[in-house]
Amino acid sequence: MITGQDEFFMRKALDEARKAFSEDEVPVGAVIVRNGEIVASAHNTRENDKNSLHHAEIKAIDEACKNLGGWRLVGCTVYVTLEPCPMCAGAIINSRVERVVYGASDKKAGSFGTMLDLTDYPLYKPEIEGGVLAEECSAILSEFFRAKR
Amino acid sequence: MITGQDEFFMRKALDEARKAFSEDEVPVGAVIVRNGEIVASAHNTRENDKNSLHHAEIKAIDEACKNLGGWRLVGCTVYVTLEPCPMCAGAIINSRVERVVYGASDKKAGSFGTMLDLTDYPLYKPEIEGGVLAEECSAILSEFFRAKR
Repeated sequence: MITGQDEFFMRKALDEARKAFSEDEVPVGAVIVRNGEIVASAHNTRENDKNSLHHAEIKAIDEACKNLGGWRLVGCTVYVTLEPCPMCAGAIINSRVERVVYGASDKKAGSFGTMLDLTDYPLYKPEIEGGVLAEECSAILSEFFRAKR
Repeated sequence: MITGQDEFFMRKALDEARKAFSEDEVPVGAVIVRNGEIVASAHNTRENDKNSLHHAEIKAIDEACKNLGGWRLVGCTVYVTLEPCPMCAGAIINSRVERVVYGASDKKAGSFGTMLDLTDYPLYKPEIEGGVLAEECSAILSEFFRAKR
């Protein structure tokens, strides 16, 4: 079930995506929330960091582990503007994140229901909610790629 | 095709796995090789680092990106003692690693042929070789879990 809180935190993830845009990075942003509080927020910095791991979700999970002092992100929700790729969906599962809320679907690599669904496998299963502010999350990506062409 | 070099570098990955064992971590090790040279080596440190991302492969990829100065690990082979999980297999794909050589298969989470096969999807496809020194790679894991019980 999508709540008003979900839109609130997705807007925070969109703020992160805009930071990526302004740094000439594919505009994807993420925040991690526990008990109504943001415990980590990050955006994609792959090009500037020259690091394939630096997707928004991975950086946010790294920060959340540090801020919460453990590898199990119990009770946490990940808000991310784009459906996670296999690496990020796998990291979310490995971290025991309780819930994932994503904005736009990703036909090319989305791994919580679109290209594949990692919740179909005998792994830890977070609750998944897609399509929150999908239009805005998708629009910033379209704008970025249009400007690139 | 498995070469003598593959066994040589898998033994280096096993050395890393032994470091993890001595630190009371699930004993998995990885090395990344380009042009016959090790450009990164790492072992699992999830518990001691309190970080869900700190699998051997992720740490090795992070180090290789830093050492090679870019996010594309073109021409690199990842040697890892255990078949990668979705997170690590996804990171390998995102990094454009040329070839993956793993030791033991992982029934629970192996994502290059066992639990699932990420090369079945329309993503970048590294060449995959499994079963190199599989018995030794599996034995160190069995020993670890036996000692834990």
